Amino acid sequence: MISRRMQKMVAGNSVIRAMFEEGLKMARQYGPENVFDFSLGNPNVPAPEEFKNAIIKILQDVPPVKVHGYMPNGGFPSVREKIAASLNKRFGTNFNSENIIMTVGAAGGLNIILKTLLNPGDEVITFAPFFGEYRNYVANFEGELVVVPPNTINFQPDLVAFEKLIRPQTKAVIINSPNNPTGVVYSEETVKRLSSILEEKQREFSSSIYLISDEPYRELVYGGTEVPYLTKYYRNTLVGYSYSKSLSIPGERLGYVAVPSEIDDYEQVWSALAVANRILGFVNAPSLVQLAVAECLDAKTDIAYYGRNRDTLYEGLTKLKFQCVKPEGAFYLFMKTPMEDDNAFAQAAKKFNILVVPGSAFGCPGYVRIAYCVSYETVVNSLPKFAELAASCGL
Amino acid sequence: MISRRMQKMVAGNSVIRAMFEEGLKMARQYGPENVFDFSLGNPNVPAPEEFKNAIIKILQDVPPVKVHGYMPNGGFPSVREKIAASLNKRFGTNFNSENIIMTVGAAGGLNIILKTLLNPGDEVITFAPFFGEYRNYVANFEGELVVVPPNTINFQPDLVAFEKLIRPQTKAVIINSPNNPTGVVYSEETVKRLSSILEEKQREFSSSIYLISDEPYRELVYGGTEVPYLTKYYRNTLVGYSYSKSLSIPGERLGYVAVPSEIDDYEQVWSALAVANRILGFVNAPSLVQLAVAECLDAKTDIAYYGRNRDTLYEGLTKLKFQCVKPEGAFYLFMKTPMEDDNAFAQAAKKFNILVVPGSAFGCPGYVRIAYCVSYETVVNSLPKFAELAASCGL
Repeated sequence: MISRRMQKMVAGNSVIRAMFEEGLKMARQYGPENVFDFSLGNPNVPAPEEFKNAIIKILQDVPPVKVHGYMPNGGFPSVREKIAASLNKRFGTNFNSENIIMTVGAAGGLNIILKTLLNPGDEVITFAPFFGEYRNYVANFEGELVVVPPNTINFQPDLVAFEKLIRPQTKAVIINSPNNPTGVVYSEETVKRLSSILEEKQREFSSSIYLISDEPYRELVYGGTEVPYLTKYYRNTLVGYSYSKSLSIPGERLGYVAVPSEIDDYEQVWSALAVANRILGFVNAPSLVQLAVAECLDAKTDIAYYGRNRDTLYEGLTKLKFQCVKPEGAFYLFMKTPMEDDNAFAQAAKKFNILVVPGSAFGCPGYVRIAYCVSYETVVNSLPKFAELAASCGL
Repeated sequence: MISRRMQKMVAGNSVIRAMFEEGLKMARQYGPENVFDFSLGNPNVPAPEEFKNAIIKILQDVPPVKVHGYMPNGGFPSVREKIAASLNKRFGTNFNSENIIMTVGAAGGLNIILKTLLNPGDEVITFAPFFGEYRNYVANFEGELVVVPPNTINFQPDLVAFEKLIRPQTKAVIINSPNNPTGVVYSEETVKRLSSILEEKQREFSSSIYLISDEPYRELVYGGTEVPYLTKYYRNTLVGYSYSKSLSIPGERLGYVAVPSEIDDYEQVWSALAVANRILGFVNAPSLVQLAVAECLDAKTDIAYYGRNRDTLYEGLTKLKFQCVKPEGAFYLFMKTPMEDDNAFAQAAKKFNILVVPGSAFGCPGYVRIAYCVSYETVVNSLPKFAELAASCGL
């Protein structure tokens, strides 16, 4: 009796979420120390102390009707102003409060962008491997997700294939760098070529093609890797950001969309985003957390912790002859499966109490995603289990 | 370049929200004490002290990765369990954590319900006057909102007209009691008749018709008015609740959907609601606020404050010969306009710095909604202005 669309959705419920709930069950069954749950991007590094202090100070200093009340659907203007100033300082942009709209995480941000842009049948291009939810977000508004096949050499996007897939009905392109699930950062060269292809296609089709930069992992990079700021390379860029990973607060649902004044139809897009925030049922991003985050824009989670996990895991796995590209950002490692069927491999791993997500969930079979936003002990103690798994696969 | 649907939405942006933003501007221009902004349901009574204390205690006692991390899409099981127990105690229901799903306010709750239920073209019935956003929420999923004309005698729903509008494609009925915008509470007699009509129609069409009870104002009633708990009268009831008004925290976006085990296709509906929470981009209700609200389920905002506003405003307005039904709940008063055109009346009121929302926005022209969730001083000081307005209308 539920809708036909939701019947399909329920049947094919998120592999990642199903694993998360299975991981909780296994932890109860075997004890959490004996389960190596690499399934979900749920940060294990605590939120910085500044965030807690900011909340307490706000509760003590600001009247509750202001802290917990409605504000404009786009968020507190004062908060948006501070975020704009912080971006300007870091990236040389020229934003003010009218370029930032506060959202319920990046997921909320992507949904209001797609609600704003898509007519039924419009196409949105993304690059495999990609965060599987893009398919659902695009389907929410009757768009079609067009997937550029993966470049498994180094997981930079395949721009030759990309160029051929752009058509008059291409309304947007979603990129995600640092990338979930590969941990790869798209290079400046990639960004420049991608931008010039888009410029050319806009001219060819006399259309506006919006580049949606989904960047919840922007702050999570290792060894000084630079993540180009997209609005500086391509005019029609919308940025979807989230504080989930940079401040370790994914449950709080806070992010923003940056809407540069230079984009085509800025005023319409801006108004539509605020309206979409309202009518999709978000209404506004959570108020107390908006105010608190604005007080700790320079705070960051402990990236060195993830860096140690990355190094230990990468070295451990490659020593066992598993193959993977060394991640430069995010907290994911994308590993080639020694057997062709990544689902079968994930099942095999489960026998050793290792939970990983099949690459098929990201449009890239033959790989698994290992989310290393876990305790260092989990990484270290998983390695003997990975060794048993490798042996069982004949490595 | 934005989508055709959103072009319409932007053009007809919420009257209520436009007023809210205009009210902020007028307050800056004339000084807040000289503007009588009755436009928005933004509670002016502060959140109870318990809520603040609960947040601080959680931040001090619970590890941040738990407080701010992901949890199952339906919310923390412990929070859902507490809410279920509280409802069981108050209303004699038989809920547990598997009957409660935490949502981003009632707006988020209604959206996941409609995403779960509606196929394109399915019909959803509601009763005028109604919260204007229902039209957008139903349109989000390509449903059709069917409106039962208002009964302007006492604003109880017109059940004779209702019965005639139910068809095989009727998938759901939304009711809202205490009602926004009238403040009327649907009587037990209304609820019983409505339930028996629905039972009969379900039999006639061999269909499931879900009754969606949108009840953010449940706790806001005056003079001991009882608000019947719908699941006890009609089996296929889904309850959409919000803490926005009962705890004065509308900016925090917290509510829940109650899904009784007895409804048709309970398991499918339950799973679909959690999936919808995820794919619409909510992911989960904000985590810290979930935990905090669970610690103050028995707390309530200061209803007596609104009660005094209601009495003063009702007496003042009726003395001026304005006509309205005395509200029994919520914090709205629905007043007949002395001129036929409610938009013209709202414009006329603005000349006296009084902001009210035309009834047309609620499917009931010839009235205005006065949201009296404002300071007592605003109510008292507005009365001379209302007197001038009355005089200008020839009352």
